[in-house]
Amino acid sequence: MSSSNVTWHSSSVSKSDRSSLNSLKPAVLWFTGLSGSGKSTIANAVEQELHRRGVRTYLLDGDNVRHGLNKDLGFSDEDRIENLRRISEVSKLFIDAGLLVLTAFISPFRVDRQRVAEMLPEGEFIEVFIDTPIEVCESRDPKGLYKKVRAGEIANFTGIDSAYEEPTHPDIHVKTNDYSIEECAAQIVDHLQASHYIS
Amino acid sequence: MSSSNVTWHSSSVSKSDRSSLNSLKPAVLWFTGLSGSGKSTIANAVEQELHRRGVRTYLLDGDNVRHGLNKDLGFSDEDRIENLRRISEVSKLFIDAGLLVLTAFISPFRVDRQRVAEMLPEGEFIEVFIDTPIEVCESRDPKGLYKKVRAGEIANFTGIDSAYEEPTHPDIHVKTNDYSIEECAAQIVDHLQASHYIS
Repeated sequence: MSSSNVTWHSSSVSKSDRSSLNSLKPAVLWFTGLSGSGKSTIANAVEQELHRRGVRTYLLDGDNVRHGLNKDLGFSDEDRIENLRRISEVSKLFIDAGLLVLTAFISPFRVDRQRVAEMLPEGEFIEVFIDTPIEVCESRDPKGLYKKVRAGEIANFTGIDSAYEEPTHPDIHVKTNDYSIEECAAQIVDHLQASHYIS
Repeated sequence: MSSSNVTWHSSSVSKSDRSSLNSLKPAVLWFTGLSGSGKSTIANAVEQELHRRGVRTYLLDGDNVRHGLNKDLGFSDEDRIENLRRISEVSKLFIDAGLLVLTAFISPFRVDRQRVAEMLPEGEFIEVFIDTPIEVCESRDPKGLYKKVRAGEIANFTGIDSAYEEPTHPDIHVKTNDYSIEECAAQIVDHLQASHYIS
């Protein structure tokens, strides 16, 4: 046995080290809004602008989470809560990795969003309300879901026969109907800069 | 309704964009070995050296996974498999984010490690065998677990009364008993460089 083994110890790279390397204050931008409100579209536009500035980001959405980590979950109340719990735990890991994380999930209930916020230290949860009138969401209907709801093929759909609880004090309130995608994205990036998440 | 909404489209920052920004080829360094073999210690030393070089990394281990994302899981066979499934899905997300991920879990069974490897594209799974004789692990006993096993307080302990299946062809074979921590870490970093994961 080599004597060096006796004194083996553990030291590690910290969240603060990684954030410094990335020149940012890590946090999650938690996008919430109706289906078709533009959460993913605006989150993608924000990510593009941040990437252009060299800011390290990652976007969690249905595409990369539902078919992977959360593919064992359905849409019961219990699974809905577990779905958001895992997304928040993964967001926390990405924050610990020193990144700006963006999440794009309807997350219609205040209590659920509150639970996410409480898991994270002060200032690491940024609630972004993508505020689009439901008539506009329905007219966009990017996934054809509203059509299916109206045809009676889907039940418990947020905004139609299941509640969407609007954020009461979102950190960023984005009114998509009055502005272009680029303007909405700029509003969010400006907030990040003004609040010193990025320089 | 603003006409700009009609043409809303989605474009996104890709894995390749993020990898380019980070100047690396993302992958997971999957550390496997007995309890007390030095997985976490060496993974931490590797991460420190990579960080010193400006390489973006993240380390997943018991500390940040068991008490967060996987805190609902126990130690049944089913939960053990779900534990590794989630860790691999999260590793996949970090790879997609353009990082070099390090994982430090005993992961004693070949079939489980094989399952992780198969989830990832060719070249993104790097098996790192931390090879330490069990006598040495037991003499180190950093968590006092071997002592508890010998006292009959823990059963089904890897290497004692539960199998550890050594990797047959690990990508990196680290013999900790012959080298210092720094030398073991250097062996891994050299491999990453020689295989063009980092420059």
